Amino acid sequence: MTAFELSARAARAALAPLHLTLSDDEALDRYAIAVWDQLVEPGDSVAGRLVAARGPLLALESLIAGSPLDELTARERTEARKRWLPRLSAQAVADTLRIAGARDIALVTRDDAVWPDQLDDLESHAPLCLWVRGDAGVLARLQPSVAIVGARAASGYGDLVARELAAELAATGVPIVSGGAYGIDGAAHRAALSAGGVTVALLAGGAERAYPAGHTRLIDDIAQTGAVVSEVPCGSAPTKWRFLQRNRLIAALTTATVVVEAGWRSGSLNTAGHASQLGRALGAVPGPITAPASAGTHRLIRESAAVCITSADDVLELLGSWAPSSGGGTAAAAAGSAATAAARRTDDATRVQDALSNRVGRDADEVARRAGMAVDEVRILLGMLQLEGSVHAGVDGWRSASARR
Amino acid sequence: MTAFELSARAARAALAPLHLTLSDDEALDRYAIAVWDQLVEPGDSVAGRLVAARGPLLALESLIAGSPLDELTARERTEARKRWLPRLSAQAVADTLRIAGARDIALVTRDDAVWPDQLDDLESHAPLCLWVRGDAGVLARLQPSVAIVGARAASGYGDLVARELAAELAATGVPIVSGGAYGIDGAAHRAALSAGGVTVALLAGGAERAYPAGHTRLIDDIAQTGAVVSEVPCGSAPTKWRFLQRNRLIAALTTATVVVEAGWRSGSLNTAGHASQLGRALGAVPGPITAPASAGTHRLIRESAAVCITSADDVLELLGSWAPSSGGGTAAAAAGSAATAAARRTDDATRVQDALSNRVGRDADEVARRAGMAVDEVRILLGMLQLEGSVHAGVDGWRSASARR
Repeated sequence: MTAFELSARAARAALAPLHLTLSDDEALDRYAIAVWDQLVEPGDSVAGRLVAARGPLLALESLIAGSPLDELTARERTEARKRWLPRLSAQAVADTLRIAGARDIALVTRDDAVWPDQLDDLESHAPLCLWVRGDAGVLARLQPSVAIVGARAASGYGDLVARELAAELAATGVPIVSGGAYGIDGAAHRAALSAGGVTVALLAGGAERAYPAGHTRLIDDIAQTGAVVSEVPCGSAPTKWRFLQRNRLIAALTTATVVVEAGWRSGSLNTAGHASQLGRALGAVPGPITAPASAGTHRLIRESAAVCITSADDVLELLGSWAPSSGGGTAAAAAGSAATAAARRTDDATRVQDALSNRVGRDADEVARRAGMAVDEVRILLGMLQLEGSVHAGVDGWRSASARR
Repeated sequence: MTAFELSARAARAALAPLHLTLSDDEALDRYAIAVWDQLVEPGDSVAGRLVAARGPLLALESLIAGSPLDELTARERTEARKRWLPRLSAQAVADTLRIAGARDIALVTRDDAVWPDQLDDLESHAPLCLWVRGDAGVLARLQPSVAIVGARAASGYGDLVARELAAELAATGVPIVSGGAYGIDGAAHRAALSAGGVTVALLAGGAERAYPAGHTRLIDDIAQTGAVVSEVPCGSAPTKWRFLQRNRLIAALTTATVVVEAGWRSGSLNTAGHASQLGRALGAVPGPITAPASAGTHRLIRESAAVCITSADDVLELLGSWAPSSGGGTAAAAAGSAATAAARRTDDATRVQDALSNRVGRDADEVARRAGMAVDEVRILLGMLQLEGSVHAGVDGWRSASARR
């Protein structure tokens, strides 16, 4: 491992592209956060606990110096070091900050006034920072707000309903949050923009890159009046793990999540599961029982995980149960089994698969670095995935068995 | 009032068309029940209590003799006499029994082995008897059974769903009960017949007359393998009151009621309300939120009055909560406010309106006789309805203000 300079001078140099006015201490803290964001994958609760206990700077110094990390168990300590240290790179952080500066993307931390406190409900899984393209002030105005999410393969009915709900809610001043994807997400963002309302897109990759590429124009439009937000460093690719973790942010940032259409195993059920676990209000729109695109929403309604939503008024009623003092919603607190099952799929095997290619072979060290995991753990998981037939070992290393998403 | 002969001879003569083998006592009891059924409108709890306390014969003797009816309050006694006695007619009972005999319609009482005991859950509102065309034995095999009900103005979607649910359930041996109407009812009956299953139609008028007339063939077909059932005497016209009371029978006879499509104020919400009040399982099928035909089912689901039903399996699951020893279902016991509001509309004003015509005037006595209510009460209600503009007073008597249903 190369030496890593953690000085005010280094911090100021790296942060220069953001044109901030900071004291030495502030610069060091903010730089340390940007470094941590580079080291860990979203939702890493061991990092969350360590940074919360020591502050980002001291936590990072301790990690680099190899000092005892008493907040962690012996096993956590060993695994965390193996997971994090291979990613420690001043160059990677500098690259991220240069992209952020060039694209006018703000680095928002919990020291900033606009930091959305509702993210505290994620406890040690809370993001360390947010990268925001557009109006970062919107982050402070998401209570109340509504997440409108659903299938990428939306039906004409789902598309219509998403547009109607988003337009009506946005017109009444409620910000609309979604994931920027094709289908329901896109319909909700577009309708909110058309209604002259505020909309926020949470991305799974870096905030500078539109994903999907076909939504480049839409995401630019969102950044004009609302915000495009990500917790992963600029330049990061969206991976399945990051999509699943991005879903937890959508649920945590908003007062209520409304699933418009979702197949039986749709990813939006993962967002619904997070909303339930966080005690946020959860709604689902019914549809024809003959339509597979509504199977997931019916499942949420049948299991009483979600309230049946038939109009924007029903969503406003859902928001009515929201109380600012409680630090979050109170309705629909019990997670439905459908939603929690979806949430459980966010496992380490997914992260390993994300780090593989079906075109080029990669050795276990490379996979571990890309996944942000310890190499020992990665080797075990690669073995398991090989037994399943999901990955192949060749002379040039490991590959995924099938074409990627 | 003419003298009314209540003797074994008179009873045997009146019952002759039914070709029954009865002792004198049995004949008298059965005849008394047929007379009571003529005197009272469905759901008359005062008659229900009196007959339950004294038995039909003694209760009728006391009424005719003008003996004290100590089971009733002074007010109930006075009003009941005024309501019942104008309808006392040996001829009317004889006519009913002649029609029953000619059309092979059985008079089923609680003395018969096939009497469905689940009707006891209606307490004093239980029917005094049932008139059954077809296989009366089916009445004893309705636990479990499913009521499939819904809008007459069903959409293509509702029609399809009713057919699929009814066919699949009937094929697994579950009897399908409905009201014989156009729309959802007809679709459910037809699909059950096509699947070779058992289906039962509960009619609001006499069991000998198909209502609607356009369903004459369907109702004949139902009587071939299942049963066509009514609690009102043969020859009775269906009135709005009798439709609403018929709905309580559909709910009470079955283990679960499933509403397939219902507008915001659909009559099938009345059936749903009865099902909830009786502790029967209640399900509702969702549909597009853009379809008014699903507004009522979404209302039941939103208010947690009904379980969201997406397949025949979901209905079987609903039946799974049914325990024979409990004398009824246990699920969905809490009545939703939508359903109970609908149930509350079964009021005396409705009965008065049923007894009016918009073509010919009727005096208050005639209205009272037709409604089966005391004339004093009718006069008060007519005055109220006049204030509302629902009825008009002319030189030839009272008329309803608008074209009837």
